[in-house]
Amino acid sequence: MIKVGIVGGTGYTGVELLRLLAQHPEADVRAITSRKDAGTRVADMFPSLRGKYPLAFVDPGEAHLDRCDVVFFATPHGVAMAQARELVGAGARIIDLAADFRLKDVAAFTQWYGMPHACPDLLAESVYGLPEVNRAAIKGARIVGNPGCYPTAVQLGFLPLLEAGVVDAQHLVADCKSGVSGAGRKAEMGLLFAEASDNFRAYSVKGHRHHPEISQGLDAAARSPVSVIFMPHLVPMIRGIYATLYARLTDTNVDLQALFERRYEGEPFVDVMPPGSMPDTRSTRASNVCRIAVHRPQGGDMAVVLVVEDNLVKGAAGQAIQNMNLMFGLVETTGLTALPVLP
Amino acid sequence: MIKVGIVGGTGYTGVELLRLLAQHPEADVRAITSRKDAGTRVADMFPSLRGKYPLAFVDPGEAHLDRCDVVFFATPHGVAMAQARELVGAGARIIDLAADFRLKDVAAFTQWYGMPHACPDLLAESVYGLPEVNRAAIKGARIVGNPGCYPTAVQLGFLPLLEAGVVDAQHLVADCKSGVSGAGRKAEMGLLFAEASDNFRAYSVKGHRHHPEISQGLDAAARSPVSVIFMPHLVPMIRGIYATLYARLTDTNVDLQALFERRYEGEPFVDVMPPGSMPDTRSTRASNVCRIAVHRPQGGDMAVVLVVEDNLVKGAAGQAIQNMNLMFGLVETTGLTALPVLP
Amino acid sequence: MIKVGIVGGTGYTGVELLRLLAQHPEADVRAITSRKDAGTRVADMFPSLRGKYPLAFVDPGEAHLDRCDVVFFATPHGVAMAQARELVGAGARIIDLAADFRLKDVAAFTQWYGMPHACPDLLAESVYGLPEVNRAAIKGARIVGNPGCYPTAVQLGFLPLLEAGVVDAQHLVADCKSGVSGAGRKAEMGLLFAEASDNFRAYSVKGHRHHPEISQGLDAAARSPVSVIFMPHLVPMIRGIYATLYARLTDTNVDLQALFERRYEGEPFVDVMPPGSMPDTRSTRASNVCRIAVHRPQGGDMAVVLVVEDNLVKGAAGQAIQNMNLMFGLVETTGLTALPVLP
Amino acid sequence: MIKVGIVGGTGYTGVELLRLLAQHPEADVRAITSRKDAGTRVADMFPSLRGKYPLAFVDPGEAHLDRCDVVFFATPHGVAMAQARELVGAGARIIDLAADFRLKDVAAFTQWYGMPHACPDLLAESVYGLPEVNRAAIKGARIVGNPGCYPTAVQLGFLPLLEAGVVDAQHLVADCKSGVSGAGRKAEMGLLFAEASDNFRAYSVKGHRHHPEISQGLDAAARSPVSVIFMPHLVPMIRGIYATLYARLTDTNVDLQALFERRYEGEPFVDVMPPGSMPDTRSTRASNVCRIAVHRPQGGDMAVVLVVEDNLVKGAAGQAIQNMNLMFGLVETTGLTALPVLP
Repeated sequence: MIKVGIVGGTGYTGVELLRLLAQHPEADVRAITSRKDAGTRVADMFPSLRGKYPLAFVDPGEAHLDRCDVVFFATPHGVAMAQARELVGAGARIIDLAADFRLKDVAAFTQWYGMPHACPDLLAESVYGLPEVNRAAIKGARIVGNPGCYPTAVQLGFLPLLEAGVVDAQHLVADCKSGVSGAGRKAEMGLLFAEASDNFRAYSVKGHRHHPEISQGLDAAARSPVSVIFMPHLVPMIRGIYATLYARLTDTNVDLQALFERRYEGEPFVDVMPPGSMPDTRSTRASNVCRIAVHRPQGGDMAVVLVVEDNLVKGAAGQAIQNMNLMFGLVETTGLTALPVLP
Repeated sequence: MIKVGIVGGTGYTGVELLRLLAQHPEADVRAITSRKDAGTRVADMFPSLRGKYPLAFVDPGEAHLDRCDVVFFATPHGVAMAQARELVGAGARIIDLAADFRLKDVAAFTQWYGMPHACPDLLAESVYGLPEVNRAAIKGARIVGNPGCYPTAVQLGFLPLLEAGVVDAQHLVADCKSGVSGAGRKAEMGLLFAEASDNFRAYSVKGHRHHPEISQGLDAAARSPVSVIFMPHLVPMIRGIYATLYARLTDTNVDLQALFERRYEGEPFVDVMPPGSMPDTRSTRASNVCRIAVHRPQGGDMAVVLVVEDNLVKGAAGQAIQNMNLMFGLVETTGLTALPVLP
Repeated sequence: MIKVGIVGGTGYTGVELLRLLAQHPEADVRAITSRKDAGTRVADMFPSLRGKYPLAFVDPGEAHLDRCDVVFFATPHGVAMAQARELVGAGARIIDLAADFRLKDVAAFTQWYGMPHACPDLLAESVYGLPEVNRAAIKGARIVGNPGCYPTAVQLGFLPLLEAGVVDAQHLVADCKSGVSGAGRKAEMGLLFAEASDNFRAYSVKGHRHHPEISQGLDAAARSPVSVIFMPHLVPMIRGIYATLYARLTDTNVDLQALFERRYEGEPFVDVMPPGSMPDTRSTRASNVCRIAVHRPQGGDMAVVLVVEDNLVKGAAGQAIQNMNLMFGLVETTGLTALPVLP
Repeated sequence: MIKVGIVGGTGYTGVELLRLLAQHPEADVRAITSRKDAGTRVADMFPSLRGKYPLAFVDPGEAHLDRCDVVFFATPHGVAMAQARELVGAGARIIDLAADFRLKDVAAFTQWYGMPHACPDLLAESVYGLPEVNRAAIKGARIVGNPGCYPTAVQLGFLPLLEAGVVDAQHLVADCKSGVSGAGRKAEMGLLFAEASDNFRAYSVKGHRHHPEISQGLDAAARSPVSVIFMPHLVPMIRGIYATLYARLTDTNVDLQALFERRYEGEPFVDVMPPGSMPDTRSTRASNVCRIAVHRPQGGDMAVVLVVEDNLVKGAAGQAIQNMNLMFGLVETTGLTALPVLP
């Protein structure tokens, strides 16, 4: 059994980790920390966990995380990098669900997150945890930067096109839509039911922190700098990300369907749907799958890629466990085989 | 492995059966029928099932259900009773998720469902599948009438009070609220998003088919005829039933919390919550648990019982699998241990 | 034109007042205050008001409310009573949408709201603003305590039964359901979209501040102390209150339909629906109407009254304007004739 | 008073026409037809109208529509053109909310709507009812083809860019999102609450009937054929359209904000928001306004235009009344001044 610690378990990615780990046959959650809620039983905050977790939140100082095999950080940005050196030194491995180990460019990290990086050397050795790109490196990583929810969807959708070099990489458009849980479990006015329900809006139009992360991944795929417009929108639903991706084909003879099927052949969590498919977010609800459909409207020179995922699973906690499975030599799908919940 | 057949798998209880059975280690779905959609692959209708069920719907005539160990009927009322004799004769056992084997009183069945009963003798031997009441009988049953969603919640909430004889059984009130999936997967105007969303209403005020089923169960618990007002309401949510039950205490010295805890001690799927709890439906979403909290507002002479369940799981498909587990000698919780999905 | 001031215009009742007053031919909003948001233009906070209100929020100290003919308080409890004496002294009339002038019993006010009353003498002269009960007194009032949203629905539903003395007033049950806007525009965890959506729950089971207000009104109607169980629930919808009221008939010969029609004959904002009706909340959305249907299930000895209203209109801002119309001798429906928004 | 007839009043655009016309000081609804529901009182189908419309639906044969000054068709495609000649001959003017008089190209009409056009000569004289483009012609029109909901938003958003010739008109992208009422009041599986709620998806990816209508308008604005990708998505909300428009700037020196403000100066129902604005659909709910914000992300060569409207008002019934006002020489805003309903 893998001894698991969770730092910051009171948010949505934290409770989702708990839900998924409860069904994981090789994971044993030993400690879950929360400074503010130390002493509160996990199941009192999240009654959905009643009967499964007798654990209470503990103060980080008393959590003995260094005795864990792996520590998940489901925390605000900046927390994981502050504790990484000590934990790694003690032999624990780290999977950070925040952004501390996502951007390889330290300057970009500082610019977008407003803080210096605490451990550039560890950042340099860390691995960006998108298994469909970095599977081999993840297996040996001590520190994994788990991708953001939008970047997972946008990268998986654009990768085949960019790797094949068949689109104009200077005018990519990623029109993305997210359920409200993507904003986290924060008491903010704009996230209230009476504000977000029966409503739709774009946000962060001037620049979203997932933009540099997306660019980093797409640059690597294209092997040169790309330019992408990333427009996030808020959908009145709890879970789900929908990315509608637009790219102008420079090669209109390419068989897009075959391109995508080949790229993701054998991938356990990427479902390239049949031609003509129109995925919906609920077909991924509560599961680790990402579904993709590729279209070429009116047979013109634009490719349109439709990508759906559950932002809390493949976009966060599920992918983190997928990474854990890889890091510990387990079958990659262990604990992640539950079907989506529909309706 | 139990060989499973499903009749009528295109509704919400059908797809929920498939979702749950996919995670059941002892069940093997051999056939799923649909007259209208024969030939359509299950995963084409429900993309959430892609990769798990290569099965296509088959015409009932070609399904060879008689070779199954158990056949679930997720059909409109009247279908199961028409096929029951043949299947039982062939050695298959039946779990009917519709109402054919719920009401022991044939006349009441005819009055509420508008059709004569096709096999009163089989109805007489069938068992009402509420494990918390009929566990022993279910184990040996050839035919189980799986309870309705409302009746499950209302009976579990009132049973301790009625069995103990501590309330006025002539003025019970069950104010119930259901998510829209409870009405089934039917293209009806009132169930449209634009009608049911941002809206709340009572329905079937003049009489709901679950009323005689509730009365039958409460009469048995009270060992005399009770009188209950049952008011169903439609909530703009997908899943979930919330029952707010009111009963006047005839014995105000009774310790309600202890009464409920004792009644459901050891029950794997009934969670009597601590004093003062206010359950919410989402704490049961996609799981087989029923949570109950009992209150006595202002210390007066009224007991208020709050009951939540997922109408498609404990209120339908999950309870059906719980019954299957009992009927085939499996551990009762087999395949039903997944945690609720929250948020 | 009536010179109008609004204190605390950043909440839902405040913005609803602005929306309705914009369509009122006799009202001229002169000042709207907010300590925190002074200087912000109203239309920048609520873009729905763009083009209609060039006003900015002003600090209460600079609002010159004493020059207004009427001042609405859309504030937390305790604010109106602190300013009432000065404003009334200057000749302004007050309509308080909070609770400062609702409970006639000063001790009850202190018990439920946790503060002493600042001006018991003004409380004594103030009028409870339920026009269907106190129309004549409202016309002459200097201070009106505008009813709470739940109390409006529950009183209008029970009044005919209690005034006629045909029910057991000791075992009334008010099972009430409210949209999320009823909790106000507050950044609280439980009101987040991802918490309140696709979910249903009771709250304040141990006691809700509207309870004493309801009791006060029902006692008066019954001309003796009643006992009522009041259970509020949160519905995943923005607006709307649904009250399902249960009362045991002591006189089973009474014609309930006629009783209700007679009681509300001529009332411009109470719609007694035809026999058998099942109202829905959306049929009142954004309008000042309250719709009522009365039932007697199975012809038994229980009356069930179904009441719907928009909590922000008849349950708050609309009723406040209805009171203003009465106080200033206008036609009662002035500015309140817009139809409900459906769908 | 303008004598108004409505053909097909049982859908969402029909009931919205009734809601808005009830508040129109110069309109008198004389007849509302429905073959299927003849005899049913309007207020029985839509309780929101109780007390305002004593009218019952009448059979088209008995409606005497030829005595009306104007007839609105809120019908399926094909109905208006079948009755147009007779009505126009009798002196009535027609506003068709369906597509019969939208596409000037008869062949395109036949291709997309699957039927020949019944009266090409009347089509030729009819006017496309987008006042911001065709105001003068609308005033004199006998027949107005009222624009579709998506085309209204997409055209208003792209017009300034295309008229000014500052974008690449061959690679326009219109990523559009609509509330569920946009699909009409039809009992279809995909529009059920339990299907559409907590879900997001694109639809009609292979081609949507609004595509040729959009192209027709954009071609005219650009004075040459444009190419636009139009991707409609379904949002779990009742009302609202959100169009996110992408265009590559060929002139990066243009002042986009000034361009839009100048184009819509004086327009009563187009609100060009301040720089940096992020509109939301609810800021237009139930009102006839269309709000637009124009952005240039990261100062690059892509213009992003955000457009919101209520699909049932500016996208249907409201715009139809705006057209009626123009046709009958009324102030254009008559009956359309109610503020959006927020929250």
